[in-house]
Amino acid sequence: MTQGIIENLITQLTKLPGIGRKSAQRLAFFILTMSPDDAKGIASAIIDVKDKARFCSTCFNITDTDPCNICSDPSRDKGKICVVEEPSNIIVIERTRSFDGTYHVLLGALSPLDGVTPDKLKINELVLRIQSDSVKEVILATNPNTKGEMTAQYITEIIKPFNVRITRIAYGLPIGSDIEFADEVTLSKALEGRREL
Amino acid sequence: MTQGIIENLITQLTKLPGIGRKSAQRLAFFILTMSPDDAKGIASAIIDVKDKARFCSTCFNITDTDPCNICSDPSRDKGKICVVEEPSNIIVIERTRSFDGTYHVLLGALSPLDGVTPDKLKINELVLRIQSDSVKEVILATNPNTKGEMTAQYITEIIKPFNVRITRIAYGLPIGSDIEFADEVTLSKALEGRREL
Repeated sequence: MTQGIIENLITQLTKLPGIGRKSAQRLAFFILTMSPDDAKGIASAIIDVKDKARFCSTCFNITDTDPCNICSDPSRDKGKICVVEEPSNIIVIERTRSFDGTYHVLLGALSPLDGVTPDKLKINELVLRIQSDSVKEVILATNPNTKGEMTAQYITEIIKPFNVRITRIAYGLPIGSDIEFADEVTLSKALEGRREL
Repeated sequence: MTQGIIENLITQLTKLPGIGRKSAQRLAFFILTMSPDDAKGIASAIIDVKDKARFCSTCFNITDTDPCNICSDPSRDKGKICVVEEPSNIIVIERTRSFDGTYHVLLGALSPLDGVTPDKLKINELVLRIQSDSVKEVILATNPNTKGEMTAQYITEIIKPFNVRITRIAYGLPIGSDIEFADEVTLSKALEGRREL
């Protein structure tokens, strides 16, 4: 028996992470009932991403225009660069609507044992931006884990000579969480970082 | 700021059931890392389904060829018709590999209060198949819930005069549940244990 179009769609959908056969089947039959425009909207968004996605030559965010729409937005403060590991981090930070500067994506974090040395990351490109633009502050928003910390430390050493303010995002308890369930490291960081009220 | 291609893909993916923003974001960034062929395989499977999906004029399964590949398969026993409510039920039953007959999709179950009367379902078409083909057995595999039972009862009354064996899948399935979510072993046991009505 040749595989039908529905079976094919189900098989295709199981390639996605966290989508097993049952979920794929539910999605496939849902897609069948969607308006053609809605369904094709999904398909063409996938095709667009694969055809047009590239890195912004300034900040290395994923974009279809170069420079990306954050770098080219005149209302963004070019004096502040928030350094992140991955393009996906930008979306999360943008959703907070609390940052009006620009970004710089490293495309990874230092991990010498895995062969990720400083030259594999977009660190030189960051240094060039600091040298050429009137950058006043570099906010290091790499992940609060071993690799991210090491990366933040390394970048601090490298950009110290350029006389910019270098900051690290705060460590502490997540809003809405419970001290009861906080791990000891986070809790001790939260105490260390306490602020005057 | 115009919406980027990634943000657009995320928005598109949230149209799917059970996919919130976080899942959509995870899927979108995964799609970015997929091979172009794999990603476009998903997109074109969606487009194919929307462009080509139609009902088999014999059994009302969803198909891109008419008759569908089950109806046109010479190795399938045309003497047995398994009656189901929805095309998705066929996929589940096929996966058990314990049925070698053909299907008939009613495209629903009787529910007079919701206006689903016998004429809204493909019951006449089933009767025509029984009259014209050499059908020996009709297996009623409607859901083991109120509507499905009512539908099975109704069909039994209608096709009794035609001198075919009428069976109901066994109640190995928990009453009140849905065929959609049955595990394959239970479902295959239920097919095995079908009894004369």
